[in-house]
Amino acid sequence: MSTDELFTNPYSPWMNGSGMDGDVVLSSRVRLARNFSDIPFPNRANLAQLSEVKAMMQEILPELEDITDKPYQCLPIDELTNLERKVLIEKHLISNNHIENPEHRALVVSDDRKVSIMINEEDHLRIQCMVSGLDLAVPLELASKIDDTIESKLDIAFNEKMGYLTSCPTNLGTGLRASVMVHLPGLVFTQQIGKIMNASPQLGLAVRGLYGEGTEVIGNIFQISNQLTLGFNEQEIMDNLTSAVLEIIMHERAARKALMTYSAERLSDQVWRAFGILKYARSVSANEALSLLSKVRLGIDTKMITEVAAKSFTELLVSSRTNYLKNLQENENLSQNEIDKERAKTIRETLEKFKVVRE
Amino acid sequence: MSTDELFTNPYSPWMNGSGMDGDVVLSSRVRLARNFSDIPFPNRANLAQLSEVKAMMQEILPELEDITDKPYQCLPIDELTNLERKVLIEKHLISNNHIENPEHRALVVSDDRKVSIMINEEDHLRIQCMVSGLDLAVPLELASKIDDTIESKLDIAFNEKMGYLTSCPTNLGTGLRASVMVHLPGLVFTQQIGKIMNASPQLGLAVRGLYGEGTEVIGNIFQISNQLTLGFNEQEIMDNLTSAVLEIIMHERAARKALMTYSAERLSDQVWRAFGILKYARSVSANEALSLLSKVRLGIDTKMITEVAAKSFTELLVSSRTNYLKNLQENENLSQNEIDKERAKTIRETLEKFKVVRE
Repeated sequence: MSTDELFTNPYSPWMNGSGMDGDVVLSSRVRLARNFSDIPFPNRANLAQLSEVKAMMQEILPELEDITDKPYQCLPIDELTNLERKVLIEKHLISNNHIENPEHRALVVSDDRKVSIMINEEDHLRIQCMVSGLDLAVPLELASKIDDTIESKLDIAFNEKMGYLTSCPTNLGTGLRASVMVHLPGLVFTQQIGKIMNASPQLGLAVRGLYGEGTEVIGNIFQISNQLTLGFNEQEIMDNLTSAVLEIIMHERAARKALMTYSAERLSDQVWRAFGILKYARSVSANEALSLLSKVRLGIDTKMITEVAAKSFTELLVSSRTNYLKNLQENENLSQNEIDKERAKTIRETLEKFKVVRE
Repeated sequence: MSTDELFTNPYSPWMNGSGMDGDVVLSSRVRLARNFSDIPFPNRANLAQLSEVKAMMQEILPELEDITDKPYQCLPIDELTNLERKVLIEKHLISNNHIENPEHRALVVSDDRKVSIMINEEDHLRIQCMVSGLDLAVPLELASKIDDTIESKLDIAFNEKMGYLTSCPTNLGTGLRASVMVHLPGLVFTQQIGKIMNASPQLGLAVRGLYGEGTEVIGNIFQISNQLTLGFNEQEIMDNLTSAVLEIIMHERAARKALMTYSAERLSDQVWRAFGILKYARSVSANEALSLLSKVRLGIDTKMITEVAAKSFTELLVSSRTNYLKNLQENENLSQNEIDKERAKTIRETLEKFKVVRE
């Protein structure tokens, strides 16, 4: 995949819906925070030190390619346009934080989009692996392999007592954050989501919006991640998160079943109206789009709608977003009207592209 | 057409859209009020007298068939179910008033639905002819031919000074009421309809809702009719109404053009959303249906929508109505939920039936 395509093709492998429990879990991501010894954390480092971090990573890239059998690109954030940076956020490849001071920040991304390494975000390295459905083992294994390769060549800050040292104490220890993106329309429509949100901190979990910390919940999509990184080993963190997510999946499925049992007609009307509007509207706002898409996806998952594939939803999670659309039009100053028109067009075309032709 | 079909087939010839100015004028109707001499008006007549009126009309039917070259049926209102009576109102064949005291009331209707004669409504006879588009001459000619035949055989109440005598003084003179059903979404959306409504009385016109006097305006459909029947001859009444309607058509077309020029994108979005909802919704209320159908029809008339024929709109003006749907289901006590479901289904099927397949 060319660099251009990274910004003009919405697809990432986590979208393909092939993973476990794909009716509720859109994707699973593991992220390891790592820092080099003897170099201050990025917020304390000078430009020369930041540059050194980037150079070390660029040097080790061929070995990462060998060990993981994937080609990588290294994209310096300061060489990207403002829109391109935001598209990377919308694609869940980098964070908001990562573009604040772009100088010497970089993204290393594998050709298949499964691995992305943020260089000089809050930590020197944030190794991220993202896959489809509920599966923390595969991305952890991949991230660890990359980490092992880096640690075999470079000196990583580690303390016997504290574990991996990180810029923010919440990441100390394993430096591991596992995060699962779930679609919970059933729990939202049956007004049970509050219970889940309230119970999460006691289970050591954080529940967040579409783009992680401090972002809005839209399209009934939540990011569930471990809050604690210290005092548990990787396996314990993953097991804890996985069992909590399995519990949430169970509740979500029960809520959907209840909706299908007690409000089937109302639900069906809502789901089909959402489909009809998206199929024909000429102007759709960002939030309305995700709210309607969430209903359509619920319709697909409950087998009410068989006209279109579930993948249309995950692809549109990226391709219907404002910065992605602006970037495609190569116009950062596109008016709200123009964006809403482009969004409606993209949605219509995507629903057409993923149309299921029945025999 | 069998009697059964009168209640189960929504079609009437005024729906075919073949008439003049069919983009704005749905139908034109002429009605002549006539009473027999020496028999009190229906509200003063006893049952024997009402029965006599009906018998006289039944006797003359073969001659009406000869002269107009159409078969007729005579339906005694008191032999119809409550639902069947209401379906006749929804089909614009009889009035609300006509079913209040059904005994000895009857409807004479031609096989092609162009002629309907209400027997013992407010007057002994109300001869009605309805055609597609703007055309008052043809229905007047047809109604007059029927009237002439009746007058040649039976004694009709007429006074040299007052003209035809009628139960209500507003019908004295010619006994003629001409009425044009117009679709005015442009004037409604551009908020100019108030001006038309306010100016009408000064022009001797009444502007009313979908089912005439005292009924609600829904689907942006208005009935425009002459208020005065006395002191003008038939031709003057018709010319006055026709020229007023031509004026309204001009304003409506200008309003649509303004919408297309200044709000094309907003209009297009509204029109297509309405289409999408109607094409997929599983439950639609009576008023929402007409409001959305009006937008779709506007989309068809402005060539934004070419997927479906304009006739779908006029047919649904009858087939999406509550009593028509209840009657089809043979269940007067159908719940609101069930009716709204049936309505949504009928709309989906009708849009499919009138789908325009492009080469």
